[in-house]
Amino acid sequence: MLIRVINPNTTRAMTDLIGRCARVVAAPGTVVEAVTPSMGPASIESHYEEALAVPGILEQVAQGERDGADAYVLACFGDPGLDAARELATGPVLGIAEAAMHAATMVGRRFSIVTTLGRTMGRAHELVDRYGFRDACAGVHACEIPVLELDAPGSRAEAIVTDYCRLAVEGDGADAVVLGCAGMADLCARISDAVGVPVVDGVTAATTLAQSLVTLGLRPAVAGEYATPPPKAMRGLLAPFEIAAAAVGGGPSPAAAPLVVTAD
Amino acid sequence: MLIRVINPNTTRAMTDLIGRCARVVAAPGTVVEAVTPSMGPASIESHYEEALAVPGILEQVAQGERDGADAYVLACFGDPGLDAARELATGPVLGIAEAAMHAATMVGRRFSIVTTLGRTMGRAHELVDRYGFRDACAGVHACEIPVLELDAPGSRAEAIVTDYCRLAVEGDGADAVVLGCAGMADLCARISDAVGVPVVDGVTAATTLAQSLVTLGLRPAVAGEYATPPPKAMRGLLAPFEIAAAAVGGGPSPAAAPLVVTAD
Amino acid sequence: MLIRVINPNTTRAMTDLIGRCARVVAAPGTVVEAVTPSMGPASIESHYEEALAVPGILEQVAQGERDGADAYVLACFGDPGLDAARELATGPVLGIAEAAMHAATMVGRRFSIVTTLGRTMGRAHELVDRYGFRDACAGVHACEIPVLELDAPGSRAEAIVTDYCRLAVEGDGADAVVLGCAGMADLCARISDAVGVPVVDGVTAATTLAQSLVTLGLRPAVAGEYATPPPKAMRGLLAPFEIAAAAVGGGPSPAAAPLVVTAD
Amino acid sequence: MLIRVINPNTTRAMTDLIGRCARVVAAPGTVVEAVTPSMGPASIESHYEEALAVPGILEQVAQGERDGADAYVLACFGDPGLDAARELATGPVLGIAEAAMHAATMVGRRFSIVTTLGRTMGRAHELVDRYGFRDACAGVHACEIPVLELDAPGSRAEAIVTDYCRLAVEGDGADAVVLGCAGMADLCARISDAVGVPVVDGVTAATTLAQSLVTLGLRPAVAGEYATPPPKAMRGLLAPFEIAAAAVGGGPSPAAAPLVVTAD
Amino acid sequence: MLIRVINPNTTRAMTDLIGRCARVVAAPGTVVEAVTPSMGPASIESHYEEALAVPGILEQVAQGERDGADAYVLACFGDPGLDAARELATGPVLGIAEAAMHAATMVGRRFSIVTTLGRTMGRAHELVDRYGFRDACAGVHACEIPVLELDAPGSRAEAIVTDYCRLAVEGDGADAVVLGCAGMADLCARISDAVGVPVVDGVTAATTLAQSLVTLGLRPAVAGEYATPPPKAMRGLLAPFEIAAAAVGGGPSPAAAPLVVTAD
Amino acid sequence: MLIRVINPNTTRAMTDLIGRCARVVAAPGTVVEAVTPSMGPASIESHYEEALAVPGILEQVAQGERDGADAYVLACFGDPGLDAARELATGPVLGIAEAAMHAATMVGRRFSIVTTLGRTMGRAHELVDRYGFRDACAGVHACEIPVLELDAPGSRAEAIVTDYCRLAVEGDGADAVVLGCAGMADLCARISDAVGVPVVDGVTAATTLAQSLVTLGLRPAVAGEYATPPPKAMRGLLAPFEIAAAAVGGGPSPAAAPLVVTAD
Repeated sequence: MLIRVINPNTTRAMTDLIGRCARVVAAPGTVVEAVTPSMGPASIESHYEEALAVPGILEQVAQGERDGADAYVLACFGDPGLDAARELATGPVLGIAEAAMHAATMVGRRFSIVTTLGRTMGRAHELVDRYGFRDACAGVHACEIPVLELDAPGSRAEAIVTDYCRLAVEGDGADAVVLGCAGMADLCARISDAVGVPVVDGVTAATTLAQSLVTLGLRPAVAGEYATPPPKAMRGLLAPFEIAAAAVGGGPSPAAAPLVVTAD
Repeated sequence: MLIRVINPNTTRAMTDLIGRCARVVAAPGTVVEAVTPSMGPASIESHYEEALAVPGILEQVAQGERDGADAYVLACFGDPGLDAARELATGPVLGIAEAAMHAATMVGRRFSIVTTLGRTMGRAHELVDRYGFRDACAGVHACEIPVLELDAPGSRAEAIVTDYCRLAVEGDGADAVVLGCAGMADLCARISDAVGVPVVDGVTAATTLAQSLVTLGLRPAVAGEYATPPPKAMRGLLAPFEIAAAAVGGGPSPAAAPLVVTAD
Repeated sequence: MLIRVINPNTTRAMTDLIGRCARVVAAPGTVVEAVTPSMGPASIESHYEEALAVPGILEQVAQGERDGADAYVLACFGDPGLDAARELATGPVLGIAEAAMHAATMVGRRFSIVTTLGRTMGRAHELVDRYGFRDACAGVHACEIPVLELDAPGSRAEAIVTDYCRLAVEGDGADAVVLGCAGMADLCARISDAVGVPVVDGVTAATTLAQSLVTLGLRPAVAGEYATPPPKAMRGLLAPFEIAAAAVGGGPSPAAAPLVVTAD
Repeated sequence: MLIRVINPNTTRAMTDLIGRCARVVAAPGTVVEAVTPSMGPASIESHYEEALAVPGILEQVAQGERDGADAYVLACFGDPGLDAARELATGPVLGIAEAAMHAATMVGRRFSIVTTLGRTMGRAHELVDRYGFRDACAGVHACEIPVLELDAPGSRAEAIVTDYCRLAVEGDGADAVVLGCAGMADLCARISDAVGVPVVDGVTAATTLAQSLVTLGLRPAVAGEYATPPPKAMRGLLAPFEIAAAAVGGGPSPAAAPLVVTAD
Repeated sequence: MLIRVINPNTTRAMTDLIGRCARVVAAPGTVVEAVTPSMGPASIESHYEEALAVPGILEQVAQGERDGADAYVLACFGDPGLDAARELATGPVLGIAEAAMHAATMVGRRFSIVTTLGRTMGRAHELVDRYGFRDACAGVHACEIPVLELDAPGSRAEAIVTDYCRLAVEGDGADAVVLGCAGMADLCARISDAVGVPVVDGVTAATTLAQSLVTLGLRPAVAGEYATPPPKAMRGLLAPFEIAAAAVGGGPSPAAAPLVVTAD
Repeated sequence: MLIRVINPNTTRAMTDLIGRCARVVAAPGTVVEAVTPSMGPASIESHYEEALAVPGILEQVAQGERDGADAYVLACFGDPGLDAARELATGPVLGIAEAAMHAATMVGRRFSIVTTLGRTMGRAHELVDRYGFRDACAGVHACEIPVLELDAPGSRAEAIVTDYCRLAVEGDGADAVVLGCAGMADLCARISDAVGVPVVDGVTAATTLAQSLVTLGLRPAVAGEYATPPPKAMRGLLAPFEIAAAAVGGGPSPAAAPLVVTAD
């Protein structure tokens, strides 16, 4: 089984971190391929950046289809481009916020989210609602550490994130914590030990859940909302994303001359 | 007052239609400028197309900021890129789904939506939830007419849309109808006469409501979720969307060498 | 266009204040007429007073219909008699709580309400729910200043209301504030400057939104819930509110010998 | 124990019917007093009529306080004036929609409502929401029989209402039915036999539940939302409803020269 | 009328307390029979104990059917086995959490719950949701006093529970309090006096409400979800709970050789 | 990894079916052990039977703890005893309704449930709500086939269930179907082929998801709601379920002389 884990930002060091974490939880026989888009922002901390991360994600899904990927993980907590990716992909696509929240509610009654910047909390709430977890979400907290500083040498990030997780457990009455950034993937086990409740990282959660969906033979329906997009003119800078009429019969891949993919 | 009405697709004929309708409801002294992005899909009927419409929308908002626009209307019923646009804009930004639903609930208890293709209904439900109108929405119906055929010569589109609106009123118990596509903007009054309840078109609704918000002096808060995105590297094809560090002090406009805007 | 702004209480000074504020936001060509009912309470701070304000409001709507009003604003934050007024009126009727909440959610994700007395908070929550904004409402706060003391000479009301607005922004995480009393209409701009997020006054919001609805040609459906009430005997003290059978064909106005209206 | 059952309309025959039904379920020692307001509409089938029924209801509560009533039932399915009545009353006040819905959910999982005119369904939905029964309410159906024709000699009302109840059970999957009008109080047992699920009439439900609340010693808190309204000027036609400053210390009754109450 | 009040735990002293409280609110002619199951836990403070209390409850309902009980009260705040009991019983069955929440919302807008151990709060929230009172519930608080210590000689339980009730009123803005344990039934009136809002005990609430339902002739439908369970093999330790085929025609009682009931 | 799949009823043939299906999806290195309780009903089609299935489930979890099970699947669509099992177990416990709904929402926007008897639909709705999927659930349908007839030789069950699934897709607009009974586990793939959308069986879904949770190191928190139940007297027939004081330090297993477990 081939699972393509897409880092929606263009920072290679994060792709490496994400790939390492995802591989730890893959079953024997599952290959995890962590990739970086050729275009888009260095990190995602605003709606603007999230929107501009989506073309790069779609490029990576299209390439994954050509490579025979069985499932995809979108490794940014805003779950950018999730629905669009589901239209392109033959197999399941999971966002890490989606996966982490599902996993958290299977082991606890109420979870809190600890995320990076306060300005992303609106999006977190929106995703909580979309996935059905409004009642299960006890709180959303921002530790105000930018994504790319989480792993900076000498960073106090781990201590601060741990403090926020503890606050969430005590103040919100949560019995699980969801980490709100792919860049926190490697902190998960240590924080769980420190705060005494399950702490969920979306990268690993999405990887194992995607693997489960493939094993179950589940994939989005081929008709309806997640059908392959119809062939249609795509103008200007985004012309490479045009889906040629010929492509549709043969599958969801964009047109003849695809973008150069710069995978990991 | 300058209101920039952005047609999120790249079909000029629709920009023209949208502009004509919007101008009808503008107050004396309000200038409506209808514009077409330089990039993106010819019409929007999938999540993929909606995602790829967003860069063009952001390009138009950035240009609008340079031109002194007071408010923006995003004239596609999926309200694509709304949050990202709010980060870039100084003034209010309204989606036409958002505006139409608000207007409908101010004159009736429950509205139904009549939209184009069935595959867009998931997005319509998502927006209904986001804006708080789950209880007010009596139903969503698709008439399965593609966006670009709504105005085709000899099209039976108006008759079919009218039938669906009548169905909504009778079957759902709705006392208002929301038209789910910018391309239906010119049908609004005639359908309302035919079905006997208020029928709301989002383009005109958003134009007048945006005008109201400007008059009221309301605009998104400058700090928090809708603050200007931070300066950050933007790679590859999307490099023109990089926000230079220098730009931020002076306002939300992207960097020094902006994309060429091909406004109407 | 004639917009009739009804002050639901019988205090003329408040009618004057409301009228002044409403006129500031009216478009060229829109006439704002602020009126005071001939009957009812001096201010509205309880359910009892709100209920007894409704006959006076209906009297003013009936008079407005005779005068050709195009729309109505009910300028009390409890939105008293809104549904009944919609039955009488040919054009749109907006409550100021309704309008303010709609406007707030068009510029921010979550708003808090700052109102007068704590005993009115139950009604505020009820209206939040009715209009669909339960998830958008971050909090309701009472500053415990009676309505008629808001504008008393030497009052510290503005400072106190501003403090509560700041509290709402910081404590609730709101990115917009709704002022919960028509008597606060003139404080709006200064408080917004002080707290750094959009602050919405319902009187001005309702006036511009009503104007928008008229421009859009939207009005409650003539059949169904908001149809003209049927002719029926009305006994005792309230006999003047009887709707004569003859009146119904010709419109929604109550019977032949109407109450004397003491408009501003 | 004295329970005052207020018929919110001014039709004596309905007061008599309501009183007869209520007395059947009263415990030994409970006196049921059915009363008719001196003012207001002959029946209530619109928001306008409901609003104009409230002064008469408040008149009857004020009189009940002078007479030592222990609890009140408001016998119109729109529960008009409920909150205002709670402010005036020392003991509990129950609306019949409120009571019927509570009772229905104690014996079944989901109930449907069968009411009179379609135009009242919006209010029914609003009450369902207010009392928390949105998920428990399987449907609302209108049989389009005016209130005052329910008991007309030779009326087919019972057969029609029974048919609608059967429809609700089969079509909605309801396992209880709530009758949506005080005028249906005497049909309850026969319809229940016919349709095979519990059928709830609000008049009898409210009478027994009010009796239970009195037995339990429960009454609205004396401070907060349901505190006695403050003394305040009441102008014009409604001047008799002014609450004198002197009255407040001694209780919630309106001022010295009360309206003449024309009780049953 | 015979109301069987079942103490779901096997501690006789609590059965006695519950019976005493229930009898105080029974109407003349109503017999209250408080019973203790022959099997199960000494008190209920976990999901495990609640689950293992259910067989004993069902034993008591089966015995009640043989004894001609008209209604049942399940006197544990988790409302254990409520749906199963409704299948066995001919008349209404009320849980004390259910009854207390219904009663609280009939006298106040929002209630808080004060319960025993923190680990039971998840169940309390679940019941709040099930009965429709998510919006009406202002908070749930645990005073961390084990059930069987509530009435221990020299216990400070009453003072602590009172403090938590006061906290709920002030901190949550509740205007009613629900006591979250049958063992608090005798504290109700004194705490209400102390905190100034209605305080509801579920045992007395359920007893009077069950009496009301019997008076109203309401009982779960005989078909559908609450029909008598079908005859079916029951193996091993639980064989005595097998419902014999013969029993079903004649009523809901389990098979020929019933468990010995050790009622009070 | 050892996953214990508990068939909550006492019919061995169903245990065998469930075990076979679960093993198909287990990863290399995962051992699936399907077990049958020593006590309880032959099948579960009522609340009564579900309640009486719980002791046998808890017996099997206790035995699993002694055997070193890493996770548990409760293979009845009512998810009986889920919370109690979580208190006993060290590792994750998943119900098949829970798992199936989570899986369905990861591949589609809205799912419908096709279950056995209509009388179980109330429980299905309750679980939908508990897990947060009220908005995602498009409908619940009962095909009125008893559990033990699903696999009867010559049964038309598969054809009937397939018809109901098709109805759900077309009538509800669902883009995924959840099968509402463990006894349907082997029909899943064929029905999915027939109806063209993903069809989810809970047994396989729960097995793979439980495996994922173990891989992720997630398990319920050891303190709080899901802590081991306290030692406490358990009387009468259920005395074997008493948790001895000594047991608690050493783990969650019930007391010294455990029930005889009759595992597969």
